[in-house]
Amino acid sequence: MSFTTDDHRYMARALQLARHGLYTTHPNPRVGCVIVRHGQIVGEGWHAKAGEAHAEIHALRMAGEAARGADVYVTLEPCSHFGRTPPCANALIQAGVARVVVAMVDPNPLVAGNGLALLQQAGIVTASGLLENDARALNPGFITSMALNRPYFRLKMAMSLDGRTAMESGESVWITGEAARRDVQFWRAQAGAVLTGIGTVLADDPSLNVRLTAQELGIDGEVRQPVRVVLDSALRFPLMAQMLRLPGQILIYTCNNDEAKIAQLAQFGVKVRCFNGDKLALTQVMAALVEDGITEVHVEAGATLTGALVAQGFADEMVIYLAAHLMGSRARALFDLPHLAHMHERIKLEIRDIRAVGQDWRMIINPKPEVKN
Amino acid sequence: MSFTTDDHRYMARALQLARHGLYTTHPNPRVGCVIVRHGQIVGEGWHAKAGEAHAEIHALRMAGEAARGADVYVTLEPCSHFGRTPPCANALIQAGVARVVVAMVDPNPLVAGNGLALLQQAGIVTASGLLENDARALNPGFITSMALNRPYFRLKMAMSLDGRTAMESGESVWITGEAARRDVQFWRAQAGAVLTGIGTVLADDPSLNVRLTAQELGIDGEVRQPVRVVLDSALRFPLMAQMLRLPGQILIYTCNNDEAKIAQLAQFGVKVRCFNGDKLALTQVMAALVEDGITEVHVEAGATLTGALVAQGFADEMVIYLAAHLMGSRARALFDLPHLAHMHERIKLEIRDIRAVGQDWRMIINPKPEVKN
Repeated sequence: MSFTTDDHRYMARALQLARHGLYTTHPNPRVGCVIVRHGQIVGEGWHAKAGEAHAEIHALRMAGEAARGADVYVTLEPCSHFGRTPPCANALIQAGVARVVVAMVDPNPLVAGNGLALLQQAGIVTASGLLENDARALNPGFITSMALNRPYFRLKMAMSLDGRTAMESGESVWITGEAARRDVQFWRAQAGAVLTGIGTVLADDPSLNVRLTAQELGIDGEVRQPVRVVLDSALRFPLMAQMLRLPGQILIYTCNNDEAKIAQLAQFGVKVRCFNGDKLALTQVMAALVEDGITEVHVEAGATLTGALVAQGFADEMVIYLAAHLMGSRARALFDLPHLAHMHERIKLEIRDIRAVGQDWRMIINPKPEVKN
Repeated sequence: MSFTTDDHRYMARALQLARHGLYTTHPNPRVGCVIVRHGQIVGEGWHAKAGEAHAEIHALRMAGEAARGADVYVTLEPCSHFGRTPPCANALIQAGVARVVVAMVDPNPLVAGNGLALLQQAGIVTASGLLENDARALNPGFITSMALNRPYFRLKMAMSLDGRTAMESGESVWITGEAARRDVQFWRAQAGAVLTGIGTVLADDPSLNVRLTAQELGIDGEVRQPVRVVLDSALRFPLMAQMLRLPGQILIYTCNNDEAKIAQLAQFGVKVRCFNGDKLALTQVMAALVEDGITEVHVEAGATLTGALVAQGFADEMVIYLAAHLMGSRARALFDLPHLAHMHERIKLEIRDIRAVGQDWRMIINPKPEVKN
């Protein structure tokens, strides 16, 4: 498929529009749309919030009659099914557009290509794959949940230069500076859930909420608080925890069906999900998160939970803040990964980005893609 | 002291010239000089090698009669004493220059300012401090040895993302890629000595030499091999070590006066320095390096020696190559620093530079400067 410079320009604009939804669309994807007639942008739109109009509909409304015979650039294949809103493919057909270019097809293998097929059947020219990587980067949660039937996991960590997170005694203070802690807020704000383990709750009594204003996030309306999910096999969650006093939903996943405790927690609005067994398995957690409609998970947890996520291949991305100091060889490890004994067992990663954030440095890391034959 | 844009431009050129000596001047400082008459550069020079002419002399020779009434920019205060060559201050006076601007005064507190004073007495206008930080960065070894009577220590390390250097068993392969290993060669080439511990020699049988050609280093003449210094309290240095078969001087610092072994090593040209006590102390090592005329030391050693250098405040700079993989929580620590138990004991550093080197990332790190009152 070959695209013109103008095609690239318009799709880049559509991607830019899609980003407006970064903090608000979860669990829906962030999508942007641009409609072009005679070399002029006549319609623009983006999806803002689940249940509200999709990007294409906003752009079609803006374009009105000018959509007839126009080129449409949309960052995700238009839907062909009735969900909470009618299918966008139908709306594009009714508007009489001439050509639809998408950055990526629907990541759900069961419906991928259906929207484009519908358009083609109506005589509309279609093309796909323009700036696809950028489009995919916008919606890691949506894509992972469709492709793997589990949420996307982003692990946030803070470590010293020698890869440590706390002293041997557990003593810890904020390792990183003010700027890094503020930066974390933006990552939390785009997630569907902030996940932690009971160990972290008991040790640090964290808030795990978003404290940025709508203005700081650059959005209209109220700030969406991600659900906070706590893995707590023995249901030790303390009723004194400050999380209980802060806005936003709390989910506790446990194996302990302690009805009295569950009733106490319910008074704070906490939902408890009880699983069989003595200890939560990550596969159970995955399935529950999917059921709870969560596609993008921001993890702030200790080395045990993060180590398990890494070891089991669930760490899709790591955002690691590096503070320029040494905590020594007895201090606590970044990840609890005690089973690696040989060099060939090393877990290979790829550092996608390093930049200064205040006095600290932030690394964005992905698993190294396997070379496929 | 206020300097013009032209002053900055000429001094920047002098610094650029000084850098030509990066791989050749040790133990002498890298110095560059520019002579300007009527807005024209009439002379340029840099110091290439101990025993040969200083930067000012080269520039004066090039300028000839044009030096009369000229402005001279030199990255280090001209010497006022007879060393291996006559004092440059005298030569500048004889040439009749009008003004001398230096980036930094002599770092030797005993003679600092003497060269400028001599020039002033001859009626020459002098100024100092122009681009001083850049000038200081050129000569860390020279400055540290003058100011602290010990060499400058640069520690080269390679670690995984989780701050590990080898598996628990000691199993290790090259952690970093080809590009990082080539980059290390340039650091070795600018050092006066490459220092290691006997543990590394026994475990890895390293060469620790410079394998770059003169062309790759951008120099004329032969490649200078830094002295290799091995700390070996018990004199366990193996006669099979490949270091013995490679060009360049080897010094062994030991506490074991084993005359037979010393004689065997002498057949390979190795010089052994024997100290009192059972175990080498770093203060003994410092004094011996100074005596051996070494001002800039490149350390490639294990966690014990590097940890001791860090703990005792001798790690002036760290060049850390970061490979994007995880080696796990049982793998070996970056530095053996077992004595840090509390957060307030953390060793504070400053990351001066991070950049990609091939598939790895290189960090250049200094101790965090103390805030002085």
